[in-house]
Amino acid sequence: MRLNISKEQFLKALLSAGKAIAPKNPNAILASLKLDLNEKGLEIIGSNSSMTIKSTVPYMIGEKNVITNSIVGSTLINAHLLTEIVRRMEGEIIGFDVIDKSIAKIDDGRSSFKLNCTTAEEYPDIDLEPNGTVFTMPCSTLTELVEQSAFAASTKEQRFILTALNLEAGDNKLVATATDSARLSRKSVDLDADISFKCNIPARALLDIVHMFENARTVEIAISDRKALFSFDGTVVSSCLVPGDYPVTKSIIPQNFNYFLEVNAQELLSAMGRVSVLASDRESVIKLSMSEDNVEVSVKSQENGSANEHIQTFQYTGERLEVSFNSLFVVDAIKALKSEDVTICFQAEMKPFVVKNGKDESVVELITPMRTY
Amino acid sequence: MRLNISKEQFLKALLSAGKAIAPKNPNAILASLKLDLNEKGLEIIGSNSSMTIKSTVPYMIGEKNVITNSIVGSTLINAHLLTEIVRRMEGEIIGFDVIDKSIAKIDDGRSSFKLNCTTAEEYPDIDLEPNGTVFTMPCSTLTELVEQSAFAASTKEQRFILTALNLEAGDNKLVATATDSARLSRKSVDLDADISFKCNIPARALLDIVHMFENARTVEIAISDRKALFSFDGTVVSSCLVPGDYPVTKSIIPQNFNYFLEVNAQELLSAMGRVSVLASDRESVIKLSMSEDNVEVSVKSQENGSANEHIQTFQYTGERLEVSFNSLFVVDAIKALKSEDVTICFQAEMKPFVVKNGKDESVVELITPMRTY
Repeated sequence: MRLNISKEQFLKALLSAGKAIAPKNPNAILASLKLDLNEKGLEIIGSNSSMTIKSTVPYMIGEKNVITNSIVGSTLINAHLLTEIVRRMEGEIIGFDVIDKSIAKIDDGRSSFKLNCTTAEEYPDIDLEPNGTVFTMPCSTLTELVEQSAFAASTKEQRFILTALNLEAGDNKLVATATDSARLSRKSVDLDADISFKCNIPARALLDIVHMFENARTVEIAISDRKALFSFDGTVVSSCLVPGDYPVTKSIIPQNFNYFLEVNAQELLSAMGRVSVLASDRESVIKLSMSEDNVEVSVKSQENGSANEHIQTFQYTGERLEVSFNSLFVVDAIKALKSEDVTICFQAEMKPFVVKNGKDESVVELITPMRTY
Repeated sequence: MRLNISKEQFLKALLSAGKAIAPKNPNAILASLKLDLNEKGLEIIGSNSSMTIKSTVPYMIGEKNVITNSIVGSTLINAHLLTEIVRRMEGEIIGFDVIDKSIAKIDDGRSSFKLNCTTAEEYPDIDLEPNGTVFTMPCSTLTELVEQSAFAASTKEQRFILTALNLEAGDNKLVATATDSARLSRKSVDLDADISFKCNIPARALLDIVHMFENARTVEIAISDRKALFSFDGTVVSSCLVPGDYPVTKSIIPQNFNYFLEVNAQELLSAMGRVSVLASDRESVIKLSMSEDNVEVSVKSQENGSANEHIQTFQYTGERLEVSFNSLFVVDAIKALKSEDVTICFQAEMKPFVVKNGKDESVVELITPMRTY
């Protein structure tokens, strides 16, 4: 295997495939990238136990040669070292040459590196074919779907299924649900394709994937019973699925409320940010006290003291009400709505409440209050 | 104690005095700032075991009232909480009011905080009077003195005296020396004052102090046998001294050399940065191979491979020579010189070598080579 390759395109593909490599992976194979030069171009594959990324550098981009002077072949090479070397090289063209299957010579005419490498046969065989239900959607739509829901998934592995984002397609809609059992977030988007499936994809993986889109416009998604595959702009990402059945959450979002608070999102975030300075590290419990002529947020901490702040601009409908909650949940929900004003709808002091954007019914954030004494 | 104070000036003084507070100090007293409103203004004092900072907010700056509506008094209050609260408040004027000696009410008309506090009598009595040898110098000169030498001090406490920057004044010169026993850095500056003293100040403290100067022009320095005191622009910083005698280092800088390499500083730094990607985490040993027509840096790593790089622009005088060294030491030395070109003078393969700026004899960096096999 040998080639001359544009430094810029090589580095871009290394950084992309390298996102699947866990830092300081003790397993030498999984700390490596597989480089495979074939008739399609240079395919670079990085993988960890749950996600695989393949990034392809083509021979030509438009009229411009990207890979020249090449002999096909493949090798396995340490991801961190190769990426750092290519990043720091100053030449525009990098020569990459595998000698005796065990040494990769990397040279830009000025710096010359000989990196230990091994044969690609040692790499696990990873299925990157699009099987099952295949459809496309705009990258921006998938990004919105994931960013407005996945944050509510659990990060703890006690109930492993709750680390997933649950996706359900049907009736030309795709609905994403995440819950860590103290809060739930649901977002729905329209689909062109008339397809139907249910699957549970690690929420963390989906957030990583939508952050890789950069300038890509359209993503092809293939959902099978073994994996979810996302293809965009020269990159293919495969994610494992989370095994098990997702809890049934359809009916738990209440429809009838007795109290309604409409506030400016930024003002409520700033006020909560200030008073929660006093909250203890472990959890940040804030009390919201509402009546038709006064809304305030407050915190009491035995150790530190107390704080309260009046909200200046609000519209409140209902009897006097006090509700306490984990402020991080409300902050996450408000940020996910990306709306200037938010509406919070309460049933009663100790019943779950809903944070939503009055002008956009496609997203709902449900939060369980906390008891304070 | 009560006052209204400009948020901007209050925050600036809190941040300044707070630099002495160790993060998450378990001792409630040392995690606190002492606030003392007296006839000079609001004095804010923060301290850790080795350094104390006093920052003063005056009643007026020019014609502008900074503190109004005041009653003198003092209190002790958690540094982190008070600073975060003041930082996040949106009002321009903050009211600060101590009630019953145990609660500080902090209010900007919008947010209202009640912070637990204690009486200032519990705070240790700290001497902040300028005793001993007192002199002034430009802040920029002290900054240069410290930044070009202190980095070479030891960060390990086995030989505690080597964590100090050694200062010696005499003959209208101030000479700073730091060594961790594998390298030594010495910088000398001219003094207006005809004074004479020797002292050892923690190198870390001096680096912190020169980074506090901001817009200050002149610093007053007072060196006694118990402490070093630095006064500038409304701030007083007291540092402990490192006990013990500093090793005699005068004669260890060699004067005669057999090999001279002159290179562009940035080119050598970039080349060393690239090849040391291959060095192991623990230490980064680089070999410099020099002859009159070729200079190259190289690294060999059993685990990772090898790298070498030719230096493009150089001037070398002497026989062929190979020297290995810890690249971090040479990188630190070159950066401290702040010079476009650097000269490295060698005696022999295994003897200490000197890195210097050919145009500035006031600073010398001495480095011990390493043996490679």
